[in-house]
Amino acid sequence: MKRVVVVGGGFGGLQAVRGLRRAADVEVTLVDRQNFHLFQPLAYQVATGGLSSAEIASPLRRVLRHQSNARVLLAEATGFDLEAREVTLDELPNGARSMTIPYDVLIVAGGSAYSYFGHDEWAEFAPELKTLQGALALRSRILSAFEAAEIETDAARRAAWLTFVVVGAGPTGVEMAGQIAELANDTLRHDFRSADPSGARVLLVEAADRVLGTFPPSLSRRAARSLESLGVTLALDTTVVDIADGTIDVQPRDGERSTIEARTVVWAAGVTASPLAGLLATASGSEVDRAGRILVDANLTLTGHPEIFAIGDMAAVRSAGGEAQRLPGVAPVAMQEGRHVARSIRDSKPEAFRYRDKGNLATIGRSHAVADVKGVHLWGFAAWVTWLAVHLAYLIGFENRLLVLTRWTFSYLTRGRTARVIHR
Amino acid sequence: MKRVVVVGGGFGGLQAVRGLRRAADVEVTLVDRQNFHLFQPLAYQVATGGLSSAEIASPLRRVLRHQSNARVLLAEATGFDLEAREVTLDELPNGARSMTIPYDVLIVAGGSAYSYFGHDEWAEFAPELKTLQGALALRSRILSAFEAAEIETDAARRAAWLTFVVVGAGPTGVEMAGQIAELANDTLRHDFRSADPSGARVLLVEAADRVLGTFPPSLSRRAARSLESLGVTLALDTTVVDIADGTIDVQPRDGERSTIEARTVVWAAGVTASPLAGLLATASGSEVDRAGRILVDANLTLTGHPEIFAIGDMAAVRSAGGEAQRLPGVAPVAMQEGRHVARSIRDSKPEAFRYRDKGNLATIGRSHAVADVKGVHLWGFAAWVTWLAVHLAYLIGFENRLLVLTRWTFSYLTRGRTARVIHR
Repeated sequence: MKRVVVVGGGFGGLQAVRGLRRAADVEVTLVDRQNFHLFQPLAYQVATGGLSSAEIASPLRRVLRHQSNARVLLAEATGFDLEAREVTLDELPNGARSMTIPYDVLIVAGGSAYSYFGHDEWAEFAPELKTLQGALALRSRILSAFEAAEIETDAARRAAWLTFVVVGAGPTGVEMAGQIAELANDTLRHDFRSADPSGARVLLVEAADRVLGTFPPSLSRRAARSLESLGVTLALDTTVVDIADGTIDVQPRDGERSTIEARTVVWAAGVTASPLAGLLATASGSEVDRAGRILVDANLTLTGHPEIFAIGDMAAVRSAGGEAQRLPGVAPVAMQEGRHVARSIRDSKPEAFRYRDKGNLATIGRSHAVADVKGVHLWGFAAWVTWLAVHLAYLIGFENRLLVLTRWTFSYLTRGRTARVIHR
Repeated sequence: MKRVVVVGGGFGGLQAVRGLRRAADVEVTLVDRQNFHLFQPLAYQVATGGLSSAEIASPLRRVLRHQSNARVLLAEATGFDLEAREVTLDELPNGARSMTIPYDVLIVAGGSAYSYFGHDEWAEFAPELKTLQGALALRSRILSAFEAAEIETDAARRAAWLTFVVVGAGPTGVEMAGQIAELANDTLRHDFRSADPSGARVLLVEAADRVLGTFPPSLSRRAARSLESLGVTLALDTTVVDIADGTIDVQPRDGERSTIEARTVVWAAGVTASPLAGLLATASGSEVDRAGRILVDANLTLTGHPEIFAIGDMAAVRSAGGEAQRLPGVAPVAMQEGRHVARSIRDSKPEAFRYRDKGNLATIGRSHAVADVKGVHLWGFAAWVTWLAVHLAYLIGFENRLLVLTRWTFSYLTRGRTARVIHR
């Protein structure tokens, strides 16, 4: 019996476990510090009141209940002993200090987190939404800002409560900026009496010269136009210099540094690999790249350790030539890698991984999205419907699909967002 | 223009606001420390993974968006100046220290909380579910206990993780005990590998000699039988003597005190009025009863203060004779009182309140409920369908009704509960 330990129940790890469901003589243990798989691409909708948390969080036990060769442990992996072939687990639910579990094959899929470019002190003032907790914290902040504006009598302070700055114009930043603008313009228009939410200012700050840098320039231009039509102000070629309580300092490439009074800042910029990548690199003598990702061979194993795979956002894959391939940190890459690893284990034949890019999607708001599907460019309503269909299809479970579709339908028809719990 | 201030957006307060929507020359301000109306009768389903939080939490602003004579303030009412006719507000969303708002008419509907019979130190070990936070905390505890049992190797400790004690056999306690038993027996049966969740023990402790003391004895017997068929052990005529970390001490009326090793204790016993009742009583020279409720005249105003109404769980209504009526602390009483107060204000004619009891419902689990509708007793499937219909009807908003109905349908068909996020 081959003991396979999978660390991380995100897109990569879960596909690896599922891919082993019919493998003979394999016993899989999935370790995650959360008891659910988060559908992270929709976390921004939890942050803006469109969806309730459980609607994008599938319990891992439930997803794997019929896979009798798999078990789930709720714990945090904190160390690897490559000699003894053991993983150390902490944060155990029974309060025990720690335990180790043995493996014959190890798959590490720890994902990534946002990086504050060495300014971890900014995190307090500018939360991110890689995690469900982050999304819920952001929701409370964004909605509380409108509540504060409603009772604030000083005009300057009210303006600061109604100023929202999103840092980073990748897909998540674009989605957040679009959603906040819609929240202010549509959803909250009738809900307030003193503050006029449509007086809200949404600023999207990006260091590069265009939004959605991974898309073709023509689609970036279309996305920028959609954002502007929603009332988002773009600050391109602009970097963030400082963030404090209630202010953010920005520096345009050819301009003066300026301070913006804003009570709500959303962080959607640089990404860094899970600390597990560094731990694994140290233990195995592997390299890490600038983003903290561990370099793995073309077959996704660690050099000198054919029994250890690293996949998803925390891994950078070497091509046959030896240099790192530039694969984007998106769910499809992680999922294909997870399935590839499962196949390698099942067939005991580790082959080189090749990513098949099926396309790139980003939504901006109601009826606005852009899509680049193998060179075919879509935008506007057509891209938006594609986006909806793809995201519904990849959500786990028919029940969650139906719940999310129900919410989206009501939201489309009424311009309402009803999952607006503030956790005070 | 008459300024009406309503404190509390629960069942009573919200009905009072809604009842004033066509009142001429009235300006309503609703103050609540949460930004949502909680449908508390279903909080136990959030606590047991059946529903997601936002599905029973309706944003107050959204509910009142078309009522142009009403505004909402997110703040906690902490004091009343009856001379100046002002309410003091704290916990303001803009971080200001406090503010006051003036009223011509004041309606206080602060609700109730669970009372630990003078043992507030038990709250840490035995959470309750009057609030959404409480329900979410309980969900994390209950689900984490199963997770702990899964990795626990010591048999005694594992048994303690799988022992659940519910204190108080009113409707909430009965519902919780039934749901935990179903969670263990049905939902989690296939989800664990080491621990056998059906080995879980669910104990319902009640000081009186029967469950559901407000129902006719014959329905109490039927409910007791349903609970036992679900695997719940009843400990009637038994009081709680002590609760500590991992243990609960109970004392049967004619037996020995004993200690039960249980990692999860749910508190659903004594209820106490909101502290606002005491504040208002002190300010106005009114009496409070043993449960901390303020005594109000038959027309729901404070004696000597025809401009102040107190309603719902925090008020005890005097009958014409002067002694307190014994109205149950349930949503229909609060709602009827809220509508009555709105009518009194609209017509400037405060009449005596009379509660019209439409019946009493409690559910025990899948296909099991009891109902006492004006002396007609229902039980089993018929009562259960009645329970479902009534609760769906009283949920606010068509969207939430559809979402909850979707979850219930899946849950009925698959015996699954998928809103199982543990907040660690």
